[in-house]
Order: sequence, then C-alpha cells, then structure tokens
Amino acid sequence: MNFDSSTICAISTAAGVGAIAVIRVSGEKAFPVVGQLFKREAQFMDAKPNQAKYGEIYAENRLIDQVIFVKFFAPHSYTGEDMVEISCHGSLYVQKKIVELLLQCGCRLAEPGEFTMRAFMNKKMDLLQAEAVSDLIESQSEAAHKLAVNQLKGGFSKKIETLRQEFIQLAALLELELDFSEEEVEFADRTQLKELLSRLKQEIAILMESFKMGNAIKTGIPVAIIGKPNVGKSTLLNALLNDDRAIVSHIPGTTRDTIEDTFMIHGTTFRFIDTAGIRSSHDEIEKHGIQRTFQTIEKADIILYLIDITNTAAHDVEKELEYIKQSVDIRHKKLILIANKIDQLTETPRHFREWSALQTIYISAKRKVNIEEITDLLAQYVREQRVGDHTLLTNVRHYNIMTQIAQDIENIEQGMAAQLPTDLLAIDVRTILNRLGEITGAISNDDILNTIFGQFCIGK
Amino acid sequence: MNFDSSTICAISTAAGVGAIAVIRVSGEKAFPVVGQLFKREAQFMDAKPNQAKYGEIYAENRLIDQVIFVKFFAPHSYTGEDMVEISCHGSLYVQKKIVELLLQCGCRLAEPGEFTMRAFMNKKMDLLQAEAVSDLIESQSEAAHKLAVNQLKGGFSKKIETLRQEFIQLAALLELELDFSEEEVEFADRTQLKELLSRLKQEIAILMESFKMGNAIKTGIPVAIIGKPNVGKSTLLNALLNDDRAIVSHIPGTTRDTIEDTFMIHGTTFRFIDTAGIRSSHDEIEKHGIQRTFQTIEKADIILYLIDITNTAAHDVEKELEYIKQSVDIRHKKLILIANKIDQLTETPRHFREWSALQTIYISAKRKVNIEEITDLLAQYVREQRVGDHTLLTNVRHYNIMTQIAQDIENIEQGMAAQLPTDLLAIDVRTILNRLGEITGAISNDDILNTIFGQFCIGK
Repeated sequence: MNFDSSTICAISTAAGVGAIAVIRVSGEKAFPVVGQLFKREAQFMDAKPNQAKYGEIYAENRLIDQVIFVKFFAPHSYTGEDMVEISCHGSLYVQKKIVELLLQCGCRLAEPGEFTMRAFMNKKMDLLQAEAVSDLIESQSEAAHKLAVNQLKGGFSKKIETLRQEFIQLAALLELELDFSEEEVEFADRTQLKELLSRLKQEIAILMESFKMGNAIKTGIPVAIIGKPNVGKSTLLNALLNDDRAIVSHIPGTTRDTIEDTFMIHGTTFRFIDTAGIRSSHDEIEKHGIQRTFQTIEKADIILYLIDITNTAAHDVEKELEYIKQSVDIRHKKLILIANKIDQLTETPRHFREWSALQTIYISAKRKVNIEEITDLLAQYVREQRVGDHTLLTNVRHYNIMTQIAQDIENIEQGMAAQLPTDLLAIDVRTILNRLGEITGAISNDDILNTIFGQFCIGK
Repeated sequence: MNFDSSTICAISTAAGVGAIAVIRVSGEKAFPVVGQLFKREAQFMDAKPNQAKYGEIYAENRLIDQVIFVKFFAPHSYTGEDMVEISCHGSLYVQKKIVELLLQCGCRLAEPGEFTMRAFMNKKMDLLQAEAVSDLIESQSEAAHKLAVNQLKGGFSKKIETLRQEFIQLAALLELELDFSEEEVEFADRTQLKELLSRLKQEIAILMESFKMGNAIKTGIPVAIIGKPNVGKSTLLNALLNDDRAIVSHIPGTTRDTIEDTFMIHGTTFRFIDTAGIRSSHDEIEKHGIQRTFQTIEKADIILYLIDITNTAAHDVEKELEYIKQSVDIRHKKLILIANKIDQLTETPRHFREWSALQTIYISAKRKVNIEEITDLLAQYVREQRVGDHTLLTNVRHYNIMTQIAQDIENIEQGMAAQLPTDLLAIDVRTILNRLGEITGAISNDDILNTIFGQFCIGK
C-alpha cells in the first residue's frame, strides 16, 4: 500500500460488461485531473458539490463516452478527500479507455481497499468499520450480511471501546499507585481488580467462543454427512442441495462453482464438506477406511449420521458412535441421527429413540420425505448458537488479538498471585490497552494496514 | 417487452461482486416506491433533482445498506421518466435484497433494454441511437467503439434522414401528379427522377457494401491461416496471438474464452477462424482434404498463405493458388503470401517476387522475425477498407432493410421502364419511405421493438 497523497482511480463496479460502470477518483487533485477529460472542462469545474451532471469525455477530439459525473467535496466524501464518481457506459473498451485517460492525466491506479484506507486515515471510520465494509461486500447470505452491517454500524467498535474503558480505569488506578510508590499505597483494591479482570476474561472468552460461529457464518457452517456405503448419503446431499439451489442461483454472478455444496436456511449458509467421497461411485469409507470419516467429523460443526433403517440395529449405531467418540471430540458438535429409507419399510419402524439415546429423524431421501425436519434442526442449531444479538467475532485478526489479550490477563493474574510490583502489572495492563487499540485502529502501523486493506477488492 | 407504464428496476452494473453496484428505477411512481425503502422517507422525498445524497435502506428495522442515491426528474433523465439511481455496496446479498425490496414496494424487474426502450418511446433518442447504446456497451475494441459512438451521436441517423428527405421530395412530386391525374401532367421529370433513383441506389449500395466491414469490426475481422502441414501455421498463430495477449488480458472481465484466437492491431479486432485444425496435432488438411481449406478461405476476409521457404518452389505456389481460385472466389479477399523458416536458410532467399506475382513477407515464426510486417499489412487492410470517416453499416437489421430498399428501387426502375401509372410508382416510393422510417424508428411496431431491445443487456 502506498501511504501517499496521490490521486487514485479505479473501476468500482464488478468486472465485466454491464449497462453502466462507475469509475472513482479520489485525492487532492481529483477535480483538476478529471476536468481534463471533459470536452467542456469549465462546465465540469463549475459543477456544484454532489450534483449529478451530464458530461462528454473526449480523447484526441474523439468522443469516448457520454457520462454522468458527481463531484464530492472534501471532507464530505467516502474517503474524506475530493472525489469524483463517473458513471459511464459499461463497455469494456470504455471502462478501460477512461481509466487510461485518467492515468495519463496524473492519476495512479488505486490499490485494493485504498479508498477505504483513506477513509480510515481521514477518520471517516475506524478499522473495525473499514473491515466491515470488506465483509459487507463479500456477504452472500443474510446472516453474513447482518454481522457485517452490525460491525459497520459500529456495534463491535462499541463493545471493544467498553472493554477498553474498563482497562483504562484499571490502568489509571495502577498508575496512580506508581506516583505514590514510595508510600506503598494501594489505590487499586486488589480484590476489586481481580474481579474486574475475571469479568473481562469472561467477556473475551465469550467473544472468542463466538468466533467459530461468526467465521462459520461468513464462510458457511460446515456440515458432514457420514454413514455406511449405500445408506443414501448422496441422495440426501442432493435432496438438501436441491431445495435451495433455485434460490441461490437467483443471485447474480454466482457461479455453480461457488454454490457447489452449499445451501441456505433462513439466510444462513451451510457448507457440506468432503462431498467428493459421497459423490464418487466408490465409497471413500470403504476405500480409505474410517480414518477419513474421522477427519470429516473433525472439520464439521454438524454431523448428519445417516443409517439405513431397513437393516440397522440400534446397538450397532451406539457401538460405532462409541468408537467415533474415542477418536474424535464431538462434545461441541451437533450430531443428528437420520434413519433413511422409510419408504422401503413394510411396517411402521420401531422407533430408535426407544432403544437409543439419540434424537432420530426418519426420512426418505429418495422421496424427499421429512427433509424439512433436518433443515429445521439445522436452523435451530444456528438459533441456539447465536443467543440474542450478541456480537460475534468474525475476523481472524480480531481473534488473534483476543487470544493475546487472554494470555495477557493470565499473566496479570499470575503476577498478582505472585505479588509482582505494581509497575510490572501496569505494563501488562498497558499492553492490553494497546492490543484493544489495534483492533479499532486507534493504534496502527503500515504492516497492519497493508494486511487489512490488501484483502479488499479493487475500487473500494 | 411490456409496453406499460409500470415502474421498473434493475441492477445496471455488471453481474457479480464489486465495490459498488448501481440499481436503477424508472417510472411514474419511482420516487414514492423507492422512498419506502429509506429509513427517513421524507429526507428521500425532499431530495433535490440530480443531487447525490446519503441514505439508509432498512427492511424490518434492519439496516440493509448505506447508499448514495440520485433522483432524476422527468423529462431530464435517461428514460425521460422519473428515475432513481441507487449506489449500494456491491455485495451479492445487498444487490439482491434491494431489488427484492423494490419488487415488494411495487416495482417490476425491467426487461433487457427496457430503460433504453422507454428513452426511445419518450423521444430521448431515435432507434438508431438506441441500437448504438447496445453496440457501445458490447464494444471491446477501439474500432467497434468508434462505430457505436458515431451512431450514438446521430451520424448514421443523419445519413438516413438525408436519404429520406430525397425520397420525400420524390414522393411529393409523384403525388402532385396524382392530384392532377386527369390532366396527365408530369411534375416529376422522369429523367431527373431516374437520376435521383440511381444516385440513391448507389448510396445504399455503398452502405450495404460497408456492412461486411462494419460487421467484421464489431465481431473481429476473420483471418485464415492456410498452408501445407509443417509449414509452421501453429507457430505463426501463436506468434500473432502472443504479441497481443498481454494487452487484451488487461481488459477487466475478459475471460480467456472470449479472447481466444482474437488479437488487436491499432484498436481493430482480428479473429482467427478454424484454428482447431491448426492446433490439433494431426493436420486437418491431410485428414479432411482440401475441402476444409476452401471452407476456411470462404469465411475469411484475409488469408495468410504460409509456405516453408526452405522447400517450396514458386510454381507450386502458383499452381495451388490457381486451384484455389477455381474453387473459391477470392477477388474481394486479401491474400498475403508468407514465406516462413528464413532462420533455417543458409543463404539469402531468392525472392519469390522475382518469379511470382505475389507480394511476399519473409518471416521466422519460431524466432518472431518480421511478424510486425504481417500486422502492418493487416492494419493497412483496415485503413484501405475504411476510406475516410464513412458511415459503416454494422447492424443486420439495417442491412436487411437496405436490401429490401434496393429491391424497391429496382421495382420502381422497372416500373418506369414499363411506363407504369404514377399511382403505382407512388406506392413503391412510399414503401421506401416507410422502410427508412423503420431504421430510425420513425415508424415502428411492437415486434420490431421487442426484437431490438430484447438483445440488450438487463439494466440498460
């Protein structure tokens, strides 16, 4: 990332041919630079702030395009700088040509996220909100969108700021003691301090715990279908995917590739893992043994354990489950037992629940009977995980900082137990304050900013 | 196409994820409909014409997006109706959600080209200009862009209008005669009339002749590489494609598929035909015989006839050429003889021109020697074909109407020769007037409009 004041430009709409495309220019010289493109430069220069006006872009006396432009005057723009937005015809040639002309007139191409980085630099938003912009753009599901919007509105920023205020209080008390260090006065009541620390630890733990869900919502909650060969795993997979395929394919620009093996329930994306094995004609479980199933289970949040009701005994299921439990920790995973092929039963099934502890759904994947019972359970899982409107941690960067803070708190607690001098405790508390500042961007450096904004799409 | 007055909406930017996306709404109720989306409806309704303003779109008390909107008041908008352009974050979810909300509030999805059709209906542009908008959006090369812009500016419209005025004059004179039919007066001097007709016929012939080039510029000028096996056709193809590949791939959204086998010289696209044969390891000429080569030559405007200079005699080339000429009409095609493998010659080549009538370029496709001599010749071909800034016919619809007009003129000429009564002549002249009106849209019907605008992209 260039931390300079040059005037930058980029195509801000999706790549490709469209009815219209928008090219953004931002920087000190945005107006004089863009003005050169127009046949009637004075008319461009005279345009009032925020006014959409018609203009003709020329190159070497040749009309390139008839456009609508808007000038945004600093600081009342997205970046906080002078900005121009040019709506041109969405031809590839026109888009490319206008950008070329801008480069000739002294712009340089914006790097990914550079517009938003400038907005951050000019204090139009904090780092959390800037990151939310990126998440918002990437959001494909209602749930992911909710998280991003919440963060964009500053919800998470507030949460972090509240935490930070508590630490500032703590730091102040400790530092007060340092001023009076010769008198060995304890301004910060150690019991009260311990209590504050433990409460903060708990809050951070909740946020960190929420990361798994937050991240899953962004990328899709991982679901595994396991079971013996020929129990109908592939049929169930298709039944679950089909229900939703029609909806997902309505989203413009979504290729089959990206929606492959994902489906949405009430706005939350679920993602099937290791479907290659399910889809191939030879069952992977037989081929590579139970080891592969264990790996699949490990990666999943939800396990659909499929059995063929026509030929499976409850004690076999329980035995196998016991075996799985010995190898994989499934305590924090949702396991759903699904008894398939009820259409092939001649008599009413003896209910598994009567002789097994597991909740069981009886379906026919082939005839699509009771499939919605599965989706209902999946939706319920999401509801359970997201009690109320708790802030969810969705960003690896935030998660890593939280992990460090948790460690810092532990250090302080150990230090207090070992009766470490106040000045050392104060240093640890300052560290935590800095880390929280890194999250919101109150404290930042070029490396951090490069990493964050480098992940943005161009033109934002 | 619906010829109704309902309020229509569409995503007007390219499909997919971008930093921003633009959603357009047009129709009588555009303002009240869009107003419902905003948290502060009054603020939206109070916004002044053409002013870019910030707004927050809500659904069920949930923030969907922070957007910039512009209201365009009829008739000062693209469509001539009240219009709103909403710039939202370019997330798939957000784009889809806002369109959904608009549909719930009483919009319907715009059909392809419907915005431009309304612009035409409201006399913001004629049919030729509307078609130019579509061409402009599809333009990928400078040459195609020039043609579209010229048409958009009304250049072609003027040409057609000039032709039409001449026919109106003719029709007036003939109809004057009808008024005085009992007196058998000839107001329209038949000699003068014949001259006018022949001049018009010539102008139409020029336009029709230009269609081949105009169409080639839109889709790429077809080039064929022919020659015996192992003369280096595939190497030459790659040498020509490689030079340009880097430039073309800079165009955003251009997939390898669409640029496959095309290259650009000075802004004109050339398109290699039948490269499958060249690329496959077994030479198609050997496989399917000379017949395939003939077909390739027939489809091409330019033929690169490649020979291996190390083992080819001039009289063989001339014999083969004679054979080709007997089977395919190449009089209007550009044939370039290319002598390859000069790098393998131990002595200076005896120049083909000395003993053959053909202009020859000496190259080494492998070492990329003299490749630019070929591209220079191709560029020259384009210059020769496009003398001055002549209007080029680019549209099949226009070409078909011109063909009909040419037939009409012939009918009139035959009629005059057979001394047909004036009233029958007058009918034929009226027919031509109607046909010219169909081109500009002065005369139109739903079928014509459906066909034209149905080819547009959505959102335009």
